[in-house]
Amino acid sequence: MSSQSFCRFTPLIASLPSTVPFVGPEAIERQTGKAVLARIGANESGFGPSPRAMAALSEAAADIWKYNDPENHALKMALAAHHGVKPDNLAIGEGIDDLLGLTVRLVIEPGLPVVTSFGGYPTFNFHVNGFGGRLVTVPYRDDREDLDGLLEAVKRENAPLVYFANPDNPMGSWWDATDVVRFARALPETCLLILDEAYGETAPANAIPPADALIDLPNVLRMRTFSKAYGLAGARIGYAIGMPGTVSAFDKIRNHFGMVRSSTAAALAALSDQAYLRQVIGRIAVARERIAAIATENGLTALPSATNFVAIDCGRDQPFARAIVDGLMQHGVFIRMPGVAPLNRCIRVSAGLEPDLDLFAESLPKVLAALR
Amino acid sequence: MSSQSFCRFTPLIASLPSTVPFVGPEAIERQTGKAVLARIGANESGFGPSPRAMAALSEAAADIWKYNDPENHALKMALAAHHGVKPDNLAIGEGIDDLLGLTVRLVIEPGLPVVTSFGGYPTFNFHVNGFGGRLVTVPYRDDREDLDGLLEAVKRENAPLVYFANPDNPMGSWWDATDVVRFARALPETCLLILDEAYGETAPANAIPPADALIDLPNVLRMRTFSKAYGLAGARIGYAIGMPGTVSAFDKIRNHFGMVRSSTAAALAALSDQAYLRQVIGRIAVARERIAAIATENGLTALPSATNFVAIDCGRDQPFARAIVDGLMQHGVFIRMPGVAPLNRCIRVSAGLEPDLDLFAESLPKVLAALR
Repeated sequence: MSSQSFCRFTPLIASLPSTVPFVGPEAIERQTGKAVLARIGANESGFGPSPRAMAALSEAAADIWKYNDPENHALKMALAAHHGVKPDNLAIGEGIDDLLGLTVRLVIEPGLPVVTSFGGYPTFNFHVNGFGGRLVTVPYRDDREDLDGLLEAVKRENAPLVYFANPDNPMGSWWDATDVVRFARALPETCLLILDEAYGETAPANAIPPADALIDLPNVLRMRTFSKAYGLAGARIGYAIGMPGTVSAFDKIRNHFGMVRSSTAAALAALSDQAYLRQVIGRIAVARERIAAIATENGLTALPSATNFVAIDCGRDQPFARAIVDGLMQHGVFIRMPGVAPLNRCIRVSAGLEPDLDLFAESLPKVLAALR
Repeated sequence: MSSQSFCRFTPLIASLPSTVPFVGPEAIERQTGKAVLARIGANESGFGPSPRAMAALSEAAADIWKYNDPENHALKMALAAHHGVKPDNLAIGEGIDDLLGLTVRLVIEPGLPVVTSFGGYPTFNFHVNGFGGRLVTVPYRDDREDLDGLLEAVKRENAPLVYFANPDNPMGSWWDATDVVRFARALPETCLLILDEAYGETAPANAIPPADALIDLPNVLRMRTFSKAYGLAGARIGYAIGMPGTVSAFDKIRNHFGMVRSSTAAALAALSDQAYLRQVIGRIAVARERIAAIATENGLTALPSATNFVAIDCGRDQPFARAIVDGLMQHGVFIRMPGVAPLNRCIRVSAGLEPDLDLFAESLPKVLAALR
């Protein structure tokens, strides 16, 4: 009885599994009965947002009875000034996840090929599947996304959409800006590039192309977020930068009144506090080094990272890495791991506060000892 | 140059206009150069949310660096207890608008007919157009949605989706629960009913079917929101109630990490304060009477309302009603009006605080005098 459902969903919907891209730490707590003591698995920022953002969130309570400005005027103005672009180069969304779903919908009809890296961001794949796109995956090469391979796949398949994250998740790798720009300009104009720069703030300066390097390309959308270095994952604010004629397409289909008023206020306040952001970026760099040192102490190998997390090569296979992830959760340490081979020999640990990394440092040798 | 866009959006996307369902009051302020002094046009609640919700919003700032639980476990548990249903009868979304878009996507392929009332909720139509559905509209009858007409249209067109709001927006009318249940049970099982009860809290008790009256129907989704009587429009929390097999379809395509953490906390707190809600519902009833009295004083006719707004019949045509709306904005009074004939002989005024209605009462005769 309870599994009975409406009988006339579209054939595409009927064919979709009800799998989710990620299981949240709260769900893991409910499943395992263990409390998460160190939340260093979802690449959130335990350093938190700017105090100005926290204050803005509280102050916004007084106006929470009002819908947010559907044009996101103030945030667009501020972001335009910050990036040196125009307000009409921007589209605002409920996190990059929202913008990814909308972008797939703008471009993909059932059966059309979509190129991404094998083991790249699962939520993008979720949206591609959700619109019936056909995923064409390119393996990582030396634990980094393979730009030549992505380009070749786009051309071979005449794909209308390609996803590339720089820096990437889940490995933390990056390409130089010159390589990224060369890749973008080598793409056929019939292929839209999603350049996911969610981790752009923590990347080396030479990894992120300047705003004007790609702003003339109608087939490029660069995506940024307040969820990572800005510490506002729970507020759900992302944005896309592109040519006005391209970003305005979102207005045809987006949930115009979907943005949360207090979140928008928090994002504005966070953006205004670049000194705090720089401080957090410094703390993230220190945390990355600490995570790498913990890995080394335990005979594991940390990969270089341009993000707010570190992928650690555990030197064996998926079951071994999985056992480490599960074992750490028994100590209250929530981390994650890549989903496919050969990346899934690694675990992925987010930069966190000292007590969080202390617990990780304390628990990891116990887990490894139990496994050996 | 700036209008140049990506050349390979889907044919459907290329065909869509970039019109938006509503222009926000902030945009009207920017366009007119006038400040909104009485914000009584978007059916928000100037009475605000429960103080508990405001406090929850502030307290949630400390955790805003964390993504929200993607399973919305706590909110589902609380809503299930509140409505006397099970947690798996619920789907949570970023306002009803989000759930409307997802529902259309679950059911509609390009060209399929979708039945709604002519002049019904524009955002629903926006989503239908956005997925290429073909709108089949049924005129209002005596300023109320025509249940017989909707049923007849569903059968004639073999439509897989029908939208019906009870109470309705923009007229504020309602049907008795027995009529609603009869309508739902008369629909073919091949047609999904969206029963939009956004204004359910302010309706007479006999207008809203009890939870168990429709919970056995796989082809019914009832939608509720925290945006209206609960006063949390800016927080974007809506939910759907239906059979588990039907509501679980949202999990196939929704933005699992789309909910805002602080908003979810605010909704939980608001739900816990039913005494405050009852107080607000009382104040809304008083405000409706005041709006009706103001209409009468000015020779206009207020329609009966089960919502947090009142439609006022201005006795003439669309240009006259439009002139009243625009004239009031010159005095800082933001209201709206229905979009199509014959409903657009009316203006629509939201229940608001006394100073807001004072300004409306003071401005309306001036506007009417200027027009006569």
